[in-house]
Amino acid sequence: MGINLTNFLSSKSKNKIMKEFQDLDHIDGVSISTVSANLYDDPRDDLVMFYFREGANYASVYTQSKIVSENIKWNLNQKIKKVFGLIVNTRNANCFTGKQGYRSLQKIAEEISLKLSEKQKIDEDQPRKIRSKEIIFGCTGTIGEIFPEEKIRNKIPDLIDKIKYTQNKLIWMKAALGIMTTDTQPKMAMEECHIGNSKIKIFGISKGSGMIQPNMATTLGYVFTDADVPNNILKKLLKKNIVTTFNAITCDSDTSTNDMVSIFSTAKIKHPKIKNVNDEKLNEFDFALNKVLLNLAKRVVADGEGASKFISIDVKNCKTEIDAKKIAFSIANSPLVKTAIAGEDPNWGRIIMAIGKAGVTINFEKISIRFGDFSIIKNGKLDENYKEDQISDYMKKNNIYISIDISSGSKTFTAYTMDLTKNYIEINADYRS
Amino acid sequence: MGINLTNFLSSKSKNKIMKEFQDLDHIDGVSISTVSANLYDDPRDDLVMFYFREGANYASVYTQSKIVSENIKWNLNQKIKKVFGLIVNTRNANCFTGKQGYRSLQKIAEEISLKLSEKQKIDEDQPRKIRSKEIIFGCTGTIGEIFPEEKIRNKIPDLIDKIKYTQNKLIWMKAALGIMTTDTQPKMAMEECHIGNSKIKIFGISKGSGMIQPNMATTLGYVFTDADVPNNILKKLLKKNIVTTFNAITCDSDTSTNDMVSIFSTAKIKHPKIKNVNDEKLNEFDFALNKVLLNLAKRVVADGEGASKFISIDVKNCKTEIDAKKIAFSIANSPLVKTAIAGEDPNWGRIIMAIGKAGVTINFEKISIRFGDFSIIKNGKLDENYKEDQISDYMKKNNIYISIDISSGSKTFTAYTMDLTKNYIEINADYRS
Repeated sequence: MGINLTNFLSSKSKNKIMKEFQDLDHIDGVSISTVSANLYDDPRDDLVMFYFREGANYASVYTQSKIVSENIKWNLNQKIKKVFGLIVNTRNANCFTGKQGYRSLQKIAEEISLKLSEKQKIDEDQPRKIRSKEIIFGCTGTIGEIFPEEKIRNKIPDLIDKIKYTQNKLIWMKAALGIMTTDTQPKMAMEECHIGNSKIKIFGISKGSGMIQPNMATTLGYVFTDADVPNNILKKLLKKNIVTTFNAITCDSDTSTNDMVSIFSTAKIKHPKIKNVNDEKLNEFDFALNKVLLNLAKRVVADGEGASKFISIDVKNCKTEIDAKKIAFSIANSPLVKTAIAGEDPNWGRIIMAIGKAGVTINFEKISIRFGDFSIIKNGKLDENYKEDQISDYMKKNNIYISIDISSGSKTFTAYTMDLTKNYIEINADYRS
Repeated sequence: MGINLTNFLSSKSKNKIMKEFQDLDHIDGVSISTVSANLYDDPRDDLVMFYFREGANYASVYTQSKIVSENIKWNLNQKIKKVFGLIVNTRNANCFTGKQGYRSLQKIAEEISLKLSEKQKIDEDQPRKIRSKEIIFGCTGTIGEIFPEEKIRNKIPDLIDKIKYTQNKLIWMKAALGIMTTDTQPKMAMEECHIGNSKIKIFGISKGSGMIQPNMATTLGYVFTDADVPNNILKKLLKKNIVTTFNAITCDSDTSTNDMVSIFSTAKIKHPKIKNVNDEKLNEFDFALNKVLLNLAKRVVADGEGASKFISIDVKNCKTEIDAKKIAFSIANSPLVKTAIAGEDPNWGRIIMAIGKAGVTINFEKISIRFGDFSIIKNGKLDENYKEDQISDYMKKNNIYISIDISSGSKTFTAYTMDLTKNYIEINADYRS
């Protein structure tokens, strides 16, 4: 990109929460290239390709919106065993673009697969003919604008030229920056684990809420591993782990038409074969995958539009997990709770209101509420030791932890969100000025 | 109150929407008195009594929150045929106040009923002994603070002294002002109609979102009529008409623990007896009641915290009314739609997003979207005549009308909301500074 990344980050990001990154380096079987297709009036990278030279097993989960973008339709239509390319563009969501949007993807996939097949002949001992259906897409940006097919097609030769078979810290950073919209920070996470005696890497990047020309809170997450896990097991692992990670976050309660989280497994590390999702050999991998997804998901919230605080809402001891989730999200999505926290006000009455409106029957004489280590409500009554000054001090922290004990069962759910500030309104109402 | 109402209003209200009031005058059988119990550090009226000297038939609907205030518990516990007094206080919601809150109401009710019984002996030909259970309460304000029993009890003699049997424009205005919290405008509405040949009045007042020390969006609405309608029919009429009026509005998606809308029927006008809710003699009354409730509900939205625009969202031609309501509220509660409208931005992509997340299965090739008179989406495609300049001009209006035609049935729902502005954040996050 020709710019100093450190300067870029420090100038762009006013956000002080979760600013430290893990360094991602090489992971076998993944190649990354990034270019600017000039989708913004800005020379920033806006088009990122992940190329799997030997193909990758993969699984994806998509938005539950009843309106989905054309790239998600494309991805769902390709019935393939291995994927060879993931192309992610920003600035345009390719949603409500109809046939124009879908056909553009088809043409781009045809051209890229052709060019990659040519490259295979040069670089590989056993070259493969890559088919257009082995290319999938992630899109994020404005809804309803014509998809910039030409701009993207013009840059395909550059994307191919830039392919390198060794990645480093810089190229991962560029990929994480290249998929950003109004994010102020790139989002990266990694873990290492074992399957059998083999050391396995799990790398991930994601983007969060809002856009340079904001239109909606679009979330993308891509996870890469050198393990050899079949598609059906990847799918089960992803679905299971998404519940407590990407499906446990909310910035502003608005659901994107383009949400997409995928995992790609390049099978470059040899290890004992995995037969099913309950295979004990997967335990460490399962745990590490959850950590990567949760780390990425938390970064999305911490960098949510206008965020000044990261908030964890831990709802414990409910009759069912659904009850716990309803209460956690009722609090996490309440504008009055979120503005109180923005104002550093320990306004626990609003927590009570949000629990009440969740629609879950509760014995209020048994509930307890804590902010951080401070007990506020104990068995339905204001704690005798409650000191508003102490809690007011606690509210000044960047990370706020709210814990609700319902005392009527054993099920738990933790939701993650951020506060609601004037900057959210500024980003979303004033961007044309 | 010793202050000039017109000056008060023009200085306090920055809001330009729905500023005109109807003048409410006398309605037989209702007496109003208002005092300051010094619940705020301010000599403003904060305690309002409606006294029905011959009793009134009545019906109420209450919040659906799983946490309800002590006054609502009190009201639900009194199994009575006629109510003699409604006492409304602001500043304190009497919620999460436990036994202290409930017993305070009991003491206040006992004292008021005693004093009113004494007054009956002086003023009435056939004096009645009024019982404490014939007094009901409306409370609005901060949750979880000790209920100011003493301050209120001290003012009971004043409340009684101030009873006048003729009301005028000023006393209604004082009542509507006396129940306000962070409202910037009093909310009043009236209609006249006929039952048989008798002319009937329906007067109403309400309060809306936020508080001086804001804690939540509490809504109260009280409607008074001189018609003679029995309790069971009042209840059915209220429940039916609440669906399209108070239950069709949202300011910020947060549900109060204290919501309460009541109707009181003093039976002072003689007319043919009403036997059931389907009685044709009720048609005009039913229609007029809906108008009063809708007028009050719209005023609550128009004066919602930080509102600069009043927004109607009309969802047409759905398979079921539930579907239409889901879509209408999904749009009305979307922070991204509401910030776009605050920014006067015709960002229809966000409307698409909000329709998509409503969870209703839709044929997107059939939907049409209009802003005011301007067609945006026609049968799933951007209208050929769409001119962004025109729509941008339209977005500058104070009243925004959004119409969505789903074209898959015949059911309709209209929701009312306001935009989401920096003032909302200021009111709710910065109030301590």
